Amino acid sequence: MSPTFDKVDTVAINTIRLLAVDATIKANSGHPGAPMGLAPVAHVLFNKFMSFNPKNPKYFNRDRFVLSNGHGCMLLYALLHLYGYDLSLDDLKNFRQLGSKTPGHPEAADTPGVEVTTGPLGQGVSNAVGLAMAQAHFAARFNKPGYDLFTNYTYAIMGDGCVMEGVASEASSAAGHLQLGNLIVFYDDNHISIDGDTAQALTEDVLKKYEAYGWQTLWVKDGDNDLAGIAAAIEEAKACKNKPTIIKVTTTIGFGSKLQGTHGVHGNPLKKDDAAHVKELFGFNPNESFVVPQEVYDLCSTTAAAGAADEEAWNQLLEKYSAEYPELAVDLKSRVAGTLPEGWEKSLPVYTPADPAIASRKLSETVLNALGDVVPQLIGGSADLTGSNYTRWKTAVDFQPPSTGFGDYSGRYIRYGVREHGMGAMMNGLAAYGGLIPFGGTFLNFVSYAAGAVRLSALSEIPVIWVATHDSIGLGEDGPTHQPIETLAHFRATPNIMVWRPADGNECSAAYKVSMTSKHTPSILALSRQNLPQLEGSTIEKASKGGYVLKEVADANITIVSTGSEVGLSLDATKILESKGYKARLVSLPDWFTFDKQSLDYKLSVFPDGHPIMSVEVMTTLGWQKYSHEQFGINTFGASGPYLQVYAKFGFTPEGIAERAEKTIAAYKGVSPRSPLHIAF
Amino acid sequence: MSPTFDKVDTVAINTIRLLAVDATIKANSGHPGAPMGLAPVAHVLFNKFMSFNPKNPKYFNRDRFVLSNGHGCMLLYALLHLYGYDLSLDDLKNFRQLGSKTPGHPEAADTPGVEVTTGPLGQGVSNAVGLAMAQAHFAARFNKPGYDLFTNYTYAIMGDGCVMEGVASEASSAAGHLQLGNLIVFYDDNHISIDGDTAQALTEDVLKKYEAYGWQTLWVKDGDNDLAGIAAAIEEAKACKNKPTIIKVTTTIGFGSKLQGTHGVHGNPLKKDDAAHVKELFGFNPNESFVVPQEVYDLCSTTAAAGAADEEAWNQLLEKYSAEYPELAVDLKSRVAGTLPEGWEKSLPVYTPADPAIASRKLSETVLNALGDVVPQLIGGSADLTGSNYTRWKTAVDFQPPSTGFGDYSGRYIRYGVREHGMGAMMNGLAAYGGLIPFGGTFLNFVSYAAGAVRLSALSEIPVIWVATHDSIGLGEDGPTHQPIETLAHFRATPNIMVWRPADGNECSAAYKVSMTSKHTPSILALSRQNLPQLEGSTIEKASKGGYVLKEVADANITIVSTGSEVGLSLDATKILESKGYKARLVSLPDWFTFDKQSLDYKLSVFPDGHPIMSVEVMTTLGWQKYSHEQFGINTFGASGPYLQVYAKFGFTPEGIAERAEKTIAAYKGVSPRSPLHIAF
Ligand SMILES: [Ca+2]
Ligand SMILES: [Ca+2]
Repeated sequence: MSPTFDKVDTVAINTIRLLAVDATIKANSGHPGAPMGLAPVAHVLFNKFMSFNPKNPKYFNRDRFVLSNGHGCMLLYALLHLYGYDLSLDDLKNFRQLGSKTPGHPEAADTPGVEVTTGPLGQGVSNAVGLAMAQAHFAARFNKPGYDLFTNYTYAIMGDGCVMEGVASEASSAAGHLQLGNLIVFYDDNHISIDGDTAQALTEDVLKKYEAYGWQTLWVKDGDNDLAGIAAAIEEAKACKNKPTIIKVTTTIGFGSKLQGTHGVHGNPLKKDDAAHVKELFGFNPNESFVVPQEVYDLCSTTAAAGAADEEAWNQLLEKYSAEYPELAVDLKSRVAGTLPEGWEKSLPVYTPADPAIASRKLSETVLNALGDVVPQLIGGSADLTGSNYTRWKTAVDFQPPSTGFGDYSGRYIRYGVREHGMGAMMNGLAAYGGLIPFGGTFLNFVSYAAGAVRLSALSEIPVIWVATHDSIGLGEDGPTHQPIETLAHFRATPNIMVWRPADGNECSAAYKVSMTSKHTPSILALSRQNLPQLEGSTIEKASKGGYVLKEVADANITIVSTGSEVGLSLDATKILESKGYKARLVSLPDWFTFDKQSLDYKLSVFPDGHPIMSVEVMTTLGWQKYSHEQFGINTFGASGPYLQVYAKFGFTPEGIAERAEKTIAAYKGVSPRSPLHIAF
Repeated sequence: MSPTFDKVDTVAINTIRLLAVDATIKANSGHPGAPMGLAPVAHVLFNKFMSFNPKNPKYFNRDRFVLSNGHGCMLLYALLHLYGYDLSLDDLKNFRQLGSKTPGHPEAADTPGVEVTTGPLGQGVSNAVGLAMAQAHFAARFNKPGYDLFTNYTYAIMGDGCVMEGVASEASSAAGHLQLGNLIVFYDDNHISIDGDTAQALTEDVLKKYEAYGWQTLWVKDGDNDLAGIAAAIEEAKACKNKPTIIKVTTTIGFGSKLQGTHGVHGNPLKKDDAAHVKELFGFNPNESFVVPQEVYDLCSTTAAAGAADEEAWNQLLEKYSAEYPELAVDLKSRVAGTLPEGWEKSLPVYTPADPAIASRKLSETVLNALGDVVPQLIGGSADLTGSNYTRWKTAVDFQPPSTGFGDYSGRYIRYGVREHGMGAMMNGLAAYGGLIPFGGTFLNFVSYAAGAVRLSALSEIPVIWVATHDSIGLGEDGPTHQPIETLAHFRATPNIMVWRPADGNECSAAYKVSMTSKHTPSILALSRQNLPQLEGSTIEKASKGGYVLKEVADANITIVSTGSEVGLSLDATKILESKGYKARLVSLPDWFTFDKQSLDYKLSVFPDGHPIMSVEVMTTLGWQKYSHEQFGINTFGASGPYLQVYAKFGFTPEGIAERAEKTIAAYKGVSPRSPLHIAF
């Protein structure tokens, strides 16, 4: 039955608008225009369609909502407050203040009810694609006749900015391919962006583009007033099961303001007299602020109560399900609890020096083959580099719409397409749904294409995993366009992200172990194209500390510290140095982030005082000064050629490393340098 | 008159195919499939339509060609060889070898005739948009009745990979908006990507999407054989003056191979017997390699000669033009020569400490206002942040299709839309055309969205300028989603790019001066939202060295080194330290890249031995160890709030800086540390 609307709905809508007006005025900062324009859509959606439980924002089958134009966050904060999430009127009054629950853009880690962190444009709608993929997967895996456990929809609102961003294009194209009927996106067509009239830069036919992507397209022409039209569009969207739907809603930015319909209301609070004008127009007292009529609270609490009842019913259904499908229920409950199958880590491969040299991308494949069936939470694929990233485990089934003939939604291998940025954002959505460990493969160099999404994984504490192969000049012939130089430094400089560069099989297993058990930190696994020997002295346990002494000697003249493919070369270099009468220690440092969390005592045991430390890595030296006195690396772009020749060109041979080590020892003759790990504050 | 085709054309096409077969076999690496499928399109285009002069690859009015699917570069190398560019058969035999002119992907800096560096997918077609914009601008500025000096077209080929990349979507949407009738893109519709059948990931209707972008769309259904159809499509494309054209060409990847039409021919050389099979099929001797029939050279040299004649005629036209339009001719000739108007740098603003505190984004606007009319090479805009980046100078005219009513093609202010990555790639194209200095504005944090394009600016030595405002936590309320932490480290770690963070007006002028005179190095200008004082001791000359001593004292206890908005705070900190009896020097280091190029003597005069050096910058400390013993920065994400409160939260006040400086002095008591600028090798 279609919803009906009365006066209270209008009051609720105007209440949302005015909360945005008041909060931005109080903060003297922020974006009132989008909330004022979008209040009708948001109200109809939250009040008449969505199922959620404000008392348990994590209720698993809740409908998800993403505000992709995150700068309009007062819309979301107002809604969360009205429906009874843990967000008070005082929190709204603290909008954009230090330490508040209402930061300038929605932060999933800060605010209950915020599903994903948005603001950087294009990300939210792409996260929504991931959220919808996750729902499709859970439904395919767990739903059984009589047990529609997973029925939720994912709703998103995006503005003109998101429409223009490439990441949104990538994810939207993927969503069309994937036929995600559970995804409904509102496009706020208000003809205004920061520069003013969108006609200055955006003249594409947005709905036609989405049609080309394979979406259902709808248009509500009067999004300011036509509540029934909005509701009818949502109903039509929900009814379309094999396509995502975009609903273009033509709205007036800053509806009610004297400046409505102009970019004057986009990013600046309303002037005092304009605010009074709007309040009078909406029948509110112009002298009062942050007013919520009780009837609005009442209207919203009815919806909230229905959501709580939905969760109650869901929990009961799950109990019945547990009796009938005990194994699936165990899996499902462990997803909800965020735990992995007991003993899963015993499946991680272990190596000895007797094992053959293997490329770490192949070692990664061995891990995925070992874990594919053991850890059903694992879901991932590659941005069209499956045969190069080695991301597909043997028993994998593709995550595909059944009509394609390539797989079904219970599958866990994702063909992301050549869409690295979209992949990163989709992974964030998959992870945000809960109960999944998403991974995505590409060349390390092209993780940079996804920098915007990677940053949000780190900021919003989402533990996704990048399988980043071809991690250096060691990829050889493809040349400088594909050879990372700055990439590791970039991500090592990013807060809250692990950047693993395993040197052998045990380190690769350690990288997966730490990444997969991480609750709040994403990972990038930098993996070689070329073969790497299995090292004496490496273990999963030691590598899990992020760094350790691979080769210890007393009274060392030098410590060499290295990562990944250069650790084996450095080990050979220590032998050359020995033959010349030097004593050289060797440290493997596969992940700086994890190592930095160890005790200072441990870190000083790895990097002690008294002799020089030299880093060896075939990319930028920038950052290595943190752990070393001298750095051997590459601060130019690479070169195209067979990889051993490229390595030799830059001096990365055992001899070349030993030569620099000798120079380092000579430069520190008579000096007893302090460990760089000591810091003054 | 439409071109006609005979047997020699077929031989030429098969010659191209076989050169790709032979080169990839000899390299035992590379991509034969795309060249074999695309040889007909490329031959028709180069032989029957394009105007270029292999003896002068820089002939200004040449048609531009971009191979966006750069992995198919043997197609391009074969063509360049056949038409007589400085690329010998031996060069082709050295495909993908160290130091060759034929690297694994096309590198503009390495190979004559390669317009832009491609390989990272989506970039080339986006560069092509920039090339076409440049042509439209030159035509609007310089063409006069009887003087059609600028008539060239820009052609590009892209594959399925480019079609899926967001950057291509952004640039293509912009191209449609800009109505670039001089842009013709071939879409190689071969149904194969690395993962195999494109239907696994790409089911969008590509032509419909481009129609939605505002392009003319054409389809050649038999791209393997229908040469007349290809030619007719190109003619139709050229005839459409107010829209870019996409020509979908359905081809067979690896045409002629036993594995044709499969991903088996995408990224691996053909097997020996398959190569023999193809050669026999094409009527070539299966036992010979790298064969070019003389008739093919002859056919190609006719086209090359026509191109040389075109240049000759163009030069004569330019001489006549010089008489009639002497001022424009002076401008044009300086563009071709790559020089700037004499004395332009005198317009750069100069400041004294008596001048008021001004945000460096405003200082940047003052520079643009001063130079907008003085340097006609300047062309740029913002990714929909004009009012925040302050990128639009007072007298600017928008670069727009006249029919929009917003400007015309002679304008130099570009409304890039919310398309940061596309902007970066379009800037690369604008610069590659020659005679232009492109700039683009966004928030510093969102330059990361364009990392793929920025990297290619650096790699291909294209001096574009990023006006990157809101460069730190100093942006305040927008919060962590917008506050860069890792961004400067990322780009400082990238080879061949300047990353300026000016501390005041003189440093801002220096940043522009060095960036605008750079021939081979792009720049990022990191600019503050908040006001910065004009510093005693800063000059354009000193700052142009990348780093200098802002405040010198004898027998210093400490040197503080800082950048941008923290230099003024650090200066105040030195005063606090003085009041406590310490002697503190202060170094401003606005650009590491430029500073690193100075003599060691100079660098050691800035960072001398004997006392500790502490860095101060409100972002990651990573990398600062290169210049300092202790680092004060922020290695977590930022916070949303009024900016002074956010600065105080992280300790970035004169008092907070002085406190860390005291701890540094204490930690180095009795130690006479060496300057970090000394290196062992
Ligand atoms: Ca808008
Ligand atoms: Ca293809």
